[in-house]
Amino acid sequence: MGDLLERFLSGDQRALARTISLVENDAPEKDELLRNLYQRTGRSYILGVTGSPGAGKSSLVDRLVEVIRKRNETVGIVAVDPTSPFTGGAILGDRIRMNDHALDSGVFIRSMGTRGSLGGLAKNTKEVAKVMDAYGMDWVIIETVGVGQAELDIMHTADTTIVVLTPGAGDSIQTMKAGIMEIADIFAVNKCDMPGSDMVVAEVEMMLNFQDDHIKWRPPVVKTSTINKSQGIDDLLGTVLKHRDYLSEKGIFKERRQERAKNETLDIVNHQWQRMVQQRIKLPGRVNDLLEKVAIREVDPYTASESILSWILNDSGIKRD
Amino acid sequence: MGDLLERFLSGDQRALARTISLVENDAPEKDELLRNLYQRTGRSYILGVTGSPGAGKSSLVDRLVEVIRKRNETVGIVAVDPTSPFTGGAILGDRIRMNDHALDSGVFIRSMGTRGSLGGLAKNTKEVAKVMDAYGMDWVIIETVGVGQAELDIMHTADTTIVVLTPGAGDSIQTMKAGIMEIADIFAVNKCDMPGSDMVVAEVEMMLNFQDDHIKWRPPVVKTSTINKSQGIDDLLGTVLKHRDYLSEKGIFKERRQERAKNETLDIVNHQWQRMVQQRIKLPGRVNDLLEKVAIREVDPYTASESILSWILNDSGIKRD
Repeated sequence: MGDLLERFLSGDQRALARTISLVENDAPEKDELLRNLYQRTGRSYILGVTGSPGAGKSSLVDRLVEVIRKRNETVGIVAVDPTSPFTGGAILGDRIRMNDHALDSGVFIRSMGTRGSLGGLAKNTKEVAKVMDAYGMDWVIIETVGVGQAELDIMHTADTTIVVLTPGAGDSIQTMKAGIMEIADIFAVNKCDMPGSDMVVAEVEMMLNFQDDHIKWRPPVVKTSTINKSQGIDDLLGTVLKHRDYLSEKGIFKERRQERAKNETLDIVNHQWQRMVQQRIKLPGRVNDLLEKVAIREVDPYTASESILSWILNDSGIKRD
Repeated sequence: MGDLLERFLSGDQRALARTISLVENDAPEKDELLRNLYQRTGRSYILGVTGSPGAGKSSLVDRLVEVIRKRNETVGIVAVDPTSPFTGGAILGDRIRMNDHALDSGVFIRSMGTRGSLGGLAKNTKEVAKVMDAYGMDWVIIETVGVGQAELDIMHTADTTIVVLTPGAGDSIQTMKAGIMEIADIFAVNKCDMPGSDMVVAEVEMMLNFQDDHIKWRPPVVKTSTINKSQGIDDLLGTVLKHRDYLSEKGIFKERRQERAKNETLDIVNHQWQRMVQQRIKLPGRVNDLLEKVAIREVDPYTASESILSWILNDSGIKRD
């Protein structure tokens, strides 16, 4: 691992890819790796991009990467692609997209599927973003299909979140229903050369008027297109930079980073606790016996959980004293 | 609470509504309530219905309820409607739908929004289903927009899960991407009087051919419609009953209920652990001091979490010894 870390720190992209894979696959050396990288994190600006499937997020991100690269800044992209084992969409999408920036050492793309359990994706995505951060990327862009709670949770990692809307069949209303309007710092109305885009802009502005009293930053609405010719991309990045300045000036940037570090710590505490419980129920013993009694409805889960909690706490307490 | 419980057990629908509200709002008496009801649960047949927004799930469920009621069986419906504070969709939908069955005491509908945090919705939905189960409903139907991990988690509660597809713009492919194909026991191709429905059926069958080696129950594909006249609803319920027989015959039904009871217990253990941690960080003390050090990057989260875990374990161990 020492060798991998050394190569990683010297800026070797293959070491970056390998490190991300270890983190993504929950390899045994993962915790140690992340611990070693931690001091180097907290410097990337994290940009979230979310929206319904088909909103054109990937193309928009690709165009954003182009203008970021013109500023001589580096970018890591985590594309969260909830994918069934049938389709293999993540891998395919990855290959297609890599071509655009394949020869550019200042860009690194990783797609992530929904392997693992509930909450696993959000956790892994944040960790991969952290690895890119430690690698020294100026920007980390996290791209998700903004529909579920896991995706919302991922977006809370971002410093600035762009919600991508498109003209057409009630997209903005669906988006509202999915609960992602609340996390928008910026709205991009993409495919703005299609009919109906002005109506989407108007709808969003109306909605923002509704809630204007409660917010300090009113999310700007930017029209973009990536279809025939790029449109509004510079404007979009300019708006992101404006939001970044706003966060810095108000002290929100620093405050959020601090809050996030605390929450990360508590997440790790909970994760380790759950690992402990999982290990315990693999072994024969009173925890397992009681669970069997719950299974045949001899004991109810509420009574059983009290005993199990206190047993695990006591056993660990004694061991660790 | 004794009075509420008594009225609940005597079949008072207002007591059912009140109990569900207490559970949904995480009222202090909730755990005690659920503990008291536990012995009466495990008898409802739990039917999950999921699919993209606009697939016509609500109408399909309403028609299913009609045919179930003709069998003189009772139904509780939990409609999970991820809703933003802006739209109030859940409440509106609830009112509209209640009209259909308002005078029928054998039907009870509750819509649930995405209040609360990550994982909260899944937990609450399962608990509300359990309350309806304890109330004596023959069926509990859980209806979700099947997109996120939380919804997938909810669906694992169901004995039989119907995935609703519709003809039109790549619906089946989107559904696959969202990863809900794997949880389907039955496919309903709804709006089957619209053009393209045969193609959807063919697509699904093809997909099933792909994975046929690995599964014992091949999900039947049933064409349904609720638009002009109802179509395929009896067939759909018939297919559900066939799946129910299959689960019973193979012993899967019993096995799953047992597994679920164990998992519920472990969920409660984890929930109580997290409550304990939350209480600890509200108080001043060494846990809080260390978290502050993490915030200013003096200590990394991995090192800090080890100390915090062992402190909490030891403190609890000593207290409970």
